Amino acid sequence: MTTRRQFFGYAGAAAAGAAATGGAVVALAKDSTTPEPVSRTISPYGEHQAGIARPAPASAELVAFKLATDRAGLGRLMRLWTSDIVALADGRPAPGDTAPELAVPNKSVTVTVGFGPRVFDLTGQKPRGLDDLPVMKHDRLRPAWSGGDLLLMVGADDAVSVVHAVRRLIADAKPFATPLWRQTGFWDSTGANGEPVTGRNLFGQVDGTGNPAFGTPEFDDTVWSTEAGFRGGTTLVVRRIRLNLDTWDELTRSEQERAVGRKLSTGAPLTGTAEHDELDLEARDADGRLVIAQNAHARLSHHSENDGRRIFRKGLNYVHDTGATRESGLIFLSHQADVAGQFLPLLTRLDAVDALNEWTTTIGSAVFALPPGFQPGEWIGQSLLS
Amino acid sequence: MTTRRQFFGYAGAAAAGAAATGGAVVALAKDSTTPEPVSRTISPYGEHQAGIARPAPASAELVAFKLATDRAGLGRLMRLWTSDIVALADGRPAPGDTAPELAVPNKSVTVTVGFGPRVFDLTGQKPRGLDDLPVMKHDRLRPAWSGGDLLLMVGADDAVSVVHAVRRLIADAKPFATPLWRQTGFWDSTGANGEPVTGRNLFGQVDGTGNPAFGTPEFDDTVWSTEAGFRGGTTLVVRRIRLNLDTWDELTRSEQERAVGRKLSTGAPLTGTAEHDELDLEARDADGRLVIAQNAHARLSHHSENDGRRIFRKGLNYVHDTGATRESGLIFLSHQADVAGQFLPLLTRLDAVDALNEWTTTIGSAVFALPPGFQPGEWIGQSLLS
Ligand code: HEM
Ligand code: HEM
Repeated sequence: MTTRRQFFGYAGAAAAGAAATGGAVVALAKDSTTPEPVSRTISPYGEHQAGIARPAPASAELVAFKLATDRAGLGRLMRLWTSDIVALADGRPAPGDTAPELAVPNKSVTVTVGFGPRVFDLTGQKPRGLDDLPVMKHDRLRPAWSGGDLLLMVGADDAVSVVHAVRRLIADAKPFATPLWRQTGFWDSTGANGEPVTGRNLFGQVDGTGNPAFGTPEFDDTVWSTEAGFRGGTTLVVRRIRLNLDTWDELTRSEQERAVGRKLSTGAPLTGTAEHDELDLEARDADGRLVIAQNAHARLSHHSENDGRRIFRKGLNYVHDTGATRESGLIFLSHQADVAGQFLPLLTRLDAVDALNEWTTTIGSAVFALPPGFQPGEWIGQSLLS
Repeated sequence: MTTRRQFFGYAGAAAAGAAATGGAVVALAKDSTTPEPVSRTISPYGEHQAGIARPAPASAELVAFKLATDRAGLGRLMRLWTSDIVALADGRPAPGDTAPELAVPNKSVTVTVGFGPRVFDLTGQKPRGLDDLPVMKHDRLRPAWSGGDLLLMVGADDAVSVVHAVRRLIADAKPFATPLWRQTGFWDSTGANGEPVTGRNLFGQVDGTGNPAFGTPEFDDTVWSTEAGFRGGTTLVVRRIRLNLDTWDELTRSEQERAVGRKLSTGAPLTGTAEHDELDLEARDADGRLVIAQNAHARLSHHSENDGRRIFRKGLNYVHDTGATRESGLIFLSHQADVAGQFLPLLTRLDAVDALNEWTTTIGSAVFALPPGFQPGEWIGQSLLS
């Protein structure tokens, strides 16, 4: 049986992808009737872990683990995972793979590894600011979605690749660590004409616009740690946020737009016309009211209102069914060099006054240090563990 | 923020897609540096419902409903759903859509509607053979995954489009029908070079090879009903089948291959070399043993061993997490003109002796009649309800 699914990765795709990430190899076909396939493989090597400085994957899973080993065991697990990750990124079965045909090249597989705060009791040198977040007033945290000693985050173009990679990695963790929670999510950053777009959460909002752009000094300063022993690493906050679609839907569109300060159609600020227009936080309407309201989410979280503090956010939409009842939400992911210094002040402020609080409830929370990347011959976490 | 995701739907993709389905419009770009986007939209109109005679979608959801209305109400719901479906297939928001921006064109959205056996108490003229399946010896059915008066099956290239469409359709069903169960699944029918492939289930098996090919008389005879009032319709069996990956993984590869009678690498029969080679059911090895064993799944289900009975199968992989514990399986979908005449004898035979029974357990079961397709101005189920 053949299928209607697309041949991806041809010239046009590669050009777009490369422009967006500064990454992929581009092969512009000379003759469009015989387009040259190009690679969608993401190299696992580099200064930083490979899954971080890129958009949210189409399909993703996060698994948190409870550690059941000592420092030496953790080092063995990291060596094992590193070799798994190199194979999986390449679309090759990792050693011991019992379903090797599910390892397929060109699926943009990335695997990101993180250490929870308690792991640094074993290693010393905890990155600055890496502590579990205090419980916010609006939080309704469930232990089942919170905390963890280790994190795996797997992303790919398709869910089969994700499920396969996760299974392999959990199997190899068996003697060392056991799963505590798992969260699956999805994100669509492809527009109607196949062009790259920011993507939308399940409220329908364009979500990600205000991020620092890849490859800019702002991005690097926001995300990468420069601490000794952790240089090139970053931290990740994972918040599982339930979105109350039913009460949200009772609002008018203009009420919805005022809650964020941006338009639903394009994601443009209410004071502008295009998605990436700067917010005008001073603008007032004919009645003298602020166009971007005092409690609008985009105002409250904007760097200019937060002593220049920035974060790099990614979202993964989730749905979670209990029988015929569906919960919808956002797996909110935030990268920053320093959780306490960058993220926590922002969160505290939003928790106090953010308009969105009325329709959102955080039900899970965890923080992880993501060690720097690795080169051939090295392993993840080496600078922290050896 | 822009993304690395592919521009799909360009010339190469369209050519492949069109070859596979005989469907899409092809626009071969003259100059590969400015490829012309082509449509991935699937027209909802036709002799048959549009989602049926095509490969499994990348992302899908099935929702079964309990009906809470009479014949006239069912007709009103069908008219409503028909207009929703026309909009959603086109990537336009359906009337009343509260998240209209999540309706995006070119996402290959299809919506398939089905009627459970009990609905025909209202309408009379039940399609021949449409009864709930008897419980098989190996079945461990849970009410939570079984039965239903109405079915919606939504497929698309991405999960956001699926979730959005399902939400709209459930909202419009509100006065008439309430969800009974929902199942989400995924399938990857794109190979390493972007080429269309059959796809694999979570055992790692190529799954779908033995299907009648689209557009052949065999396919049409297998799938479409010719009964008066139901001509152009078909039936769908939905079986939720848990796959025990752990015990499956304890087998050697050759034991796994013998259980089906096909190779894991290519899906070729153990008696052949290429995926679509015919099975040689008589071939014996040097010791005189049948190469494709007596209890091999592909032998037992082959049409030549079943008085020529055929079905058209699609699979959707699923994972279902309870806390940190994952269940993996296959949402097994079978189309045939007549459930009792084509599917049930096959199922009964497999239940009795199929080698696969040791690693698979059916936990949900339902059957639906899928009314014929519709043209502009008509509505789904019209021939059954008016
Ligand atoms: C509760 C669920 C949340 C939703 C639905 C949501 C949604 C949004 C939306 C639609 C925007 C505007 C577009 C954009 O810049 O991406 C935005 C911006 C932003 N959000 Fe959130 N957000 C949520 C939670 C949070 C949390 C918990 C934080 C951090 C503590 C946060 C921090 C930010 C930041 C920093 C911006 C960019 C502001 C700017 O520079 O313009 N958001 N969010
Ligand atoms: C229990 C889970 C099942 C799994 C994992 C499974 C897997 C497979 C595989 C790997 C093949 C060979 C490749 C192919 O032709 O697609 C196959 C063939 C087939 N299966 Fe299944 N199957 C399952 C259940 C069923 C059920 C319940 C039925 C029908 C009652 C069925 C009917 C068939 C048929 C008709 C073929 C094609 C045989 C041929 O013509 O060569 N399968 N299945």
